[in-house]
Amino acid sequence: MQKYGGSSVADATSIKRVAGRIVAAKKAGHDVVVVVSAMGDSTDELIDLANEVSPIPPARELDMLLTAGERISMALLAMAIGNLGQEARSFTGSQAGVITDDSHGRAKIIDVTPGRLQNALDEGAVVIVAGFQGVSQTTKDITTLGRGGSDTTAVALAAALKADVCEIYTDVDGIFTADPRIEPKARRIRAISYEETLEMAANGAKILHLRCVEYARRNDMPIHVRSSFSEKTGTWVVAADQVARHLEQEGDSDMEQAIISGVAHDRSEAKITVVGVPDRPGEAAAILRALGDAEINIDMIVQNVSASATALTDISFTLPRADGQTAMTALARLKDQVGFERLLYDDSVGKVSIIGAGMRSQPGITATFFEALAAAGVNIAMISTSEIRISVTVSETHVDTAVRAAHEAFGLGTGEVEAVVYGGSGR
Amino acid sequence: MQKYGGSSVADATSIKRVAGRIVAAKKAGHDVVVVVSAMGDSTDELIDLANEVSPIPPARELDMLLTAGERISMALLAMAIGNLGQEARSFTGSQAGVITDDSHGRAKIIDVTPGRLQNALDEGAVVIVAGFQGVSQTTKDITTLGRGGSDTTAVALAAALKADVCEIYTDVDGIFTADPRIEPKARRIRAISYEETLEMAANGAKILHLRCVEYARRNDMPIHVRSSFSEKTGTWVVAADQVARHLEQEGDSDMEQAIISGVAHDRSEAKITVVGVPDRPGEAAAILRALGDAEINIDMIVQNVSASATALTDISFTLPRADGQTAMTALARLKDQVGFERLLYDDSVGKVSIIGAGMRSQPGITATFFEALAAAGVNIAMISTSEIRISVTVSETHVDTAVRAAHEAFGLGTGEVEAVVYGGSGR
Repeated sequence: MQKYGGSSVADATSIKRVAGRIVAAKKAGHDVVVVVSAMGDSTDELIDLANEVSPIPPARELDMLLTAGERISMALLAMAIGNLGQEARSFTGSQAGVITDDSHGRAKIIDVTPGRLQNALDEGAVVIVAGFQGVSQTTKDITTLGRGGSDTTAVALAAALKADVCEIYTDVDGIFTADPRIEPKARRIRAISYEETLEMAANGAKILHLRCVEYARRNDMPIHVRSSFSEKTGTWVVAADQVARHLEQEGDSDMEQAIISGVAHDRSEAKITVVGVPDRPGEAAAILRALGDAEINIDMIVQNVSASATALTDISFTLPRADGQTAMTALARLKDQVGFERLLYDDSVGKVSIIGAGMRSQPGITATFFEALAAAGVNIAMISTSEIRISVTVSETHVDTAVRAAHEAFGLGTGEVEAVVYGGSGR
Repeated sequence: MQKYGGSSVADATSIKRVAGRIVAAKKAGHDVVVVVSAMGDSTDELIDLANEVSPIPPARELDMLLTAGERISMALLAMAIGNLGQEARSFTGSQAGVITDDSHGRAKIIDVTPGRLQNALDEGAVVIVAGFQGVSQTTKDITTLGRGGSDTTAVALAAALKADVCEIYTDVDGIFTADPRIEPKARRIRAISYEETLEMAANGAKILHLRCVEYARRNDMPIHVRSSFSEKTGTWVVAADQVARHLEQEGDSDMEQAIISGVAHDRSEAKITVVGVPDRPGEAAAILRALGDAEINIDMIVQNVSASATALTDISFTLPRADGQTAMTALARLKDQVGFERLLYDDSVGKVSIIGAGMRSQPGITATFFEALAAAGVNIAMISTSEIRISVTVSETHVDTAVRAAHEAFGLGTGEVEAVVYGGSGR
């Protein structure tokens, strides 16, 4: 199973290059199933066309339109493979048996019935599948899966076809210990668990989408993230108890155990503070209910301890910037009922997270992290933690400094620690 | 049922204009089903892309690629209609139930099962269907119908849905008595029978494709060919016994009966002459068999009377220019077996045909036609006739002159005869 993104099939030259890789994999004796995205920015061009005819295109028709993009790239890729003497057959999401619910634009895969793909494989053909799309179980209409949909398609088909591995091809060499554009010393992670990858994805790392990793974890489908521009090994995303084995295969059996696997950052959030909330039971719940009703996912949340005689408290939380206006409107409607003083909106926040399964058994990680930020002059606003992650919000202008300070403090750039080894996660 | 071609949906502005027409038809109380072609030259652009990755793209994948074109135009049209407050749903050929054989690139419709379309209509939606495409009954692969496929889709769906009329929108006002670029006096035909339209299409008139008219005749589905750029009535193509009724509806009940409905011409043919064929039984058959085996459709055929003592004859026939090379090769292989002298190839021939059901009951039509050509200095090479048509080949340089001479001779530009009325055709 291989998946190529839009930049890997941006033009005829790229498509021919990818075709060469696929034929090589087939010649090496593998059954090959390939999931492709639309070419380069063809999806954006289709969206522009849609906006020219309708300011708010109906979701069903937008899905019908956008799925033309993968249709074009998959047919061209099948032709390019055919031109190398290897039969290839392309299939739409619907033909491939990607069955979804009927939420146009953000459909969820609910079943995969890859009978036609299996037949084509049995007949010796390379199979090309359109990513990002499926067919609704109830309405039989064409759906798209939304962000990360092509990666998720690849993992879902890999699981349904019982593939050995799902290779996700991209324009970088794998998952890095930090964004190399911020920290030039960032290194490729050789192997990492599903759980840590989930935390990376949820906290701003762009390389794999949350849904795709969740799907892989649920089905224990190893993902190999690698570059379509080189033959190098990339990053293996596997079950926690398989990380060590993958490192051994690369001849790194004696490497030192790392505590932190990587540093993620996120500039897409905003912070809202509800000032002067009466410190009574149920007030915070009312605020969160209003946000939930508006379908806004909040991320970090902090409530100050009420210290004054007035018994008023402040509640701050972060949320996607895109939802900022909706949230402020929803909360403003709540002002009289809750009786808070005012709302503050701050969209110049950034979030920096350190992620590593090793921190479970290691005391002092939080101290090391905060000391490093303090030494770099970075002020911390909010804090949240999970079992394998510590996140802080900082001023957006301090994000780069904070990423570099954390990367340095945990020795991620030194070459001795290139991956994370730890025991089973228990899940 | 309405069908819009590529020029009618070439860009966002055109699509919005077409959307307006469709909504007007819906508001007038009609159930509306619309068949669309791909936008402008998007099909050519897709073919260019295909050729960039493969000199001979596999037919299955070429069909997969090309069907993306209608997918884009139909979704955009549905959006534009939605933007006018009317729900519209687009369907691929496969979703619309256009079942074909498995001849990729030139599939034949073998069944139409429009259940999903009927449901959408019953729910009050306007239905948009991708023209030119279907799904193979045996392989379930996506097929395209080849030339004239969108018109044929429209007629097939109209018949399956028992529509009152199939409106074919184009960039001209209807079917004309001759090509207006050649004969400025050419007039719109108000109503014409299926049979005459078939002869027009088979003899070079570009406006409707043969397959589409045949389908309409078999199912007695009236076609209204009209301009997408105006509100004017176009040309009604109907059963022979309905022509008079349509003329009455336009208030022309007392108009004079025309003998000839139109003059068609064709510059796409070539002529091959097999010189010195022994005048024995079976020789002509051997020649025609060789062409048949090479899948070449020949049109007119003439065999000279053998007059000399050598008992040799010449056989001339016309065929599509595109097949000229193939035919010459196939015939050259036959030289020793048949023992003919040589082959002559002429691709500077043109064909001019007069078509009219009225000629059945009118003697002297041929004489009038030939006298007109002679008076205009046009030499006739080959002649062929059907019950309602007389065709001649002339030098390609004489085509325009011949068309104008015939048009004049039968009074087609005078305004008194604008359509053809005659009794039932018996078919």
